[in-house]
Amino acid sequence: MLKLYSFGPGANSLKPMLALFEKFTFGQQFTVHQLNPRNFEHHADWFKALNPRGQVPALEDANLPEGANIITESTVICEYLEDAHPTAVKLRPTSHYDVAQMRCWTKWVDEYFCWCVSTIGWHRHVSTMVKDLSEAEFEEVVARIPVFEQQVKWRRAREGFPADLLDEEMRKVAVSVRKLDDHLADNEWLAGGVYSLADICNYSTAAHLTMGYDELVNTEDSPHLLRWIDQIKARPAVVEMYAKVPREF
Amino acid sequence: MLKLYSFGPGANSLKPMLALFEKFTFGQQFTVHQLNPRNFEHHADWFKALNPRGQVPALEDANLPEGANIITESTVICEYLEDAHPTAVKLRPTSHYDVAQMRCWTKWVDEYFCWCVSTIGWHRHVSTMVKDLSEAEFEEVVARIPVFEQQVKWRRAREGFPADLLDEEMRKVAVSVRKLDDHLADNEWLAGGVYSLADICNYSTAAHLTMGYDELVNTEDSPHLLRWIDQIKARPAVVEMYAKVPREF
Repeated sequence: MLKLYSFGPGANSLKPMLALFEKFTFGQQFTVHQLNPRNFEHHADWFKALNPRGQVPALEDANLPEGANIITESTVICEYLEDAHPTAVKLRPTSHYDVAQMRCWTKWVDEYFCWCVSTIGWHRHVSTMVKDLSEAEFEEVVARIPVFEQQVKWRRAREGFPADLLDEEMRKVAVSVRKLDDHLADNEWLAGGVYSLADICNYSTAAHLTMGYDELVNTEDSPHLLRWIDQIKARPAVVEMYAKVPREF
Repeated sequence: MLKLYSFGPGANSLKPMLALFEKFTFGQQFTVHQLNPRNFEHHADWFKALNPRGQVPALEDANLPEGANIITESTVICEYLEDAHPTAVKLRPTSHYDVAQMRCWTKWVDEYFCWCVSTIGWHRHVSTMVKDLSEAEFEEVVARIPVFEQQVKWRRAREGFPADLLDEEMRKVAVSVRKLDDHLADNEWLAGGVYSLADICNYSTAAHLTMGYDELVNTEDSPHLLRWIDQIKARPAVVEMYAKVPREF
């Protein structure tokens, strides 16, 4: 049995969730233990005992020995599922060359695309979680965060992100939309002509762009990106996932 | 036959070079086409035809069809060599769990460790390459760079990196040294008890720390990191690599 510790279906939590729903039967072969971000549950001691970085998603694999049964980092979890739990559904292309292209795409999400969209999302939505806390309550929240850069991000969420940072992040979102749409103009999927972890990992961030980015993401400027998002949303595993895993916001 | 387009043995170029020397016979099974960074050869049209991002390393695999025979991104190249060219020398651990740990380490280099060390290296060394150019010569160099963020980095190298950025990067170098040394205190290698891509990718950045970081990296504060660096330097494949591939600086 596999257990995914995660938030609702969005951003990094969405990546292994999509992979699990494609490959396995929900409730029988895997479960989802949903943490509540509004309670900062990922910074609670019980969860930091599983992942000392206090970050979701994390995968618990009952096949592994206790004490060494937790896989962290969303992209690493996705590759692990392919390595350790192969099924008839393959989420990596067949040829080694195409797998390398897939990894360029998953790497790009993790190093570029997810960060700019994340900052805008924090600025617009996540910041509301800490705006009304008292100074003491907020400091208590920050003190429980193990990763320094995450502490900085929460402070900025509360104080407001610098305007030049937000401008730079929006520039990167625009670059990302262009890159995806251009590639998808000539390709049904991102790598190797098949639905793969490249699509899963990029969709997990790109899905956020259909709300609140109208000037960049619309039928005129990014029709191929929207076609690809719709294509993924229509997959039976994805429909099932959205029906069974509640969203937070 | 495999051909690696790269700079000398340092940073990202070093990663696939170390993997190739472990696995294959230099000159027979692979060659190294060394580009000259002082001429900005990686931004020349002939190279951008191979890698449109104008970045080394890039691997050409004669087994692949022309037009789709170049693998880019240093970590992706390393994984590709394991996937497409398995040999008796395995550079990934055996268990899937350990491979996942290895990938957390290679990911960490690419997202955190390599960037802070790179900025300090650019500030100290690389910047000398553009300080003496005329304004017109410099703009000609920048105009040939396809990646916007790299253009910004070259401008900063010329004008001087902001002091607060350098302080922040040095803080991250210190965090990185602590993380590596702590882990290596209890482990001979970074993942799975064997020499793997985790070690190769981290060493490629960590090797720079033995010169010019005396306050952080010394026998008192980071003995385990230094032990591990020496251990890698003593490997026959690594000795051979340094003997056969000329350094630039």
